[in-house]
Amino acid sequence: MPKIINHDVRRRKIAEATWQVILKKGMEGATVRNIAKEAGLSLGALRYYFQTQDELLVYAMELVQDRATNRIRAIYQQSLPPKEMAVAVLLEIIPMNEDTRAEMEVWFAFITYMKPKENAKDIVGDNVQYVIRKIMDYLETTKSLVNDIDLHLETERLYALVDGIALHAMMQPKRLSAKKIEETIRYHLNTICKS
Amino acid sequence: MPKIINHDVRRRKIAEATWQVILKKGMEGATVRNIAKEAGLSLGALRYYFQTQDELLVYAMELVQDRATNRIRAIYQQSLPPKEMAVAVLLEIIPMNEDTRAEMEVWFAFITYMKPKENAKDIVGDNVQYVIRKIMDYLETTKSLVNDIDLHLETERLYALVDGIALHAMMQPKRLSAKKIEETIRYHLNTICKS
Repeated sequence: MPKIINHDVRRRKIAEATWQVILKKGMEGATVRNIAKEAGLSLGALRYYFQTQDELLVYAMELVQDRATNRIRAIYQQSLPPKEMAVAVLLEIIPMNEDTRAEMEVWFAFITYMKPKENAKDIVGDNVQYVIRKIMDYLETTKSLVNDIDLHLETERLYALVDGIALHAMMQPKRLSAKKIEETIRYHLNTICKS
Repeated sequence: MPKIINHDVRRRKIAEATWQVILKKGMEGATVRNIAKEAGLSLGALRYYFQTQDELLVYAMELVQDRATNRIRAIYQQSLPPKEMAVAVLLEIIPMNEDTRAEMEVWFAFITYMKPKENAKDIVGDNVQYVIRKIMDYLETTKSLVNDIDLHLETERLYALVDGIALHAMMQPKRLSAKKIEETIRYHLNTICKS
């Protein structure tokens, strides 16, 4: 009887091997050869799933995004008060543990690698901006925001704040503890939300 | 008469060639060979100044930092009111034009490239955090801050905000105009400073 291979599972395994290689060796080490080795596959087997290196990298990055999206969706399904919902979602975007920090490192290595290829084009890829807008709209709709704020600038400010904290959480995990991150996020939300 | 070579000038030229190569080809293209070609030097001549690729990269990055430091020092020497001084310095940290955006891209490519080599260590390298602390202390000393704020968390918040905007300015220069950046910075400072 022929061995049954679940192709989706194998593609995911290859993506995970790609993340490992990027974490260990950076993007310049993320060659098809190194990834095949990490996945325990022959070059030929890997090429069966991904014809080019770029195709493989894009798939691996989409999977990083899917994981984050699923975690955020799970939070939406809890019934939390508006401000607590906002805190929970924002703390999901910011890498707070080793797993999500690794995801962000991989993501970052990827967009930095893509930048020269994209040239003058804006890199938008990630959906953090979309999630931030959704949170601010939700806080507005539920009348959770204080009165004298500029919704547009507040959205821009929160977007920058969250990506800045995420960046620091990735680059300086020892300096910036999970506790400090949550304190900063709560502090900010307290300045824009009714108590 | 032998040709007189100013070695400092030549080292700087090599550093500038390094930035160009990183901007065009990314870190994975920043080989000694490509840099020598961009600088119009032989491999041997380049090796006379920098024995290893890492030595060259570190020098090129130190030069990026020096340029930023000099620009910020020039602002300190103007006699601006405290809040305006803060605005001016922060807008110097954030890449607002093509030159400073290129500097930041190079810097970013560099720290992302160093990350796997540094492993568990925090990457602190840049002095943005130091400058932010200095600004917040200055606003505090000059009694420019409103009363009910937490200086420690405000410093963390401003640090994240500035690095987040800088990141967006680099990645999405078309979406985030210089005007919008200044508006966001002023908006934030207005919430923490006395009017």
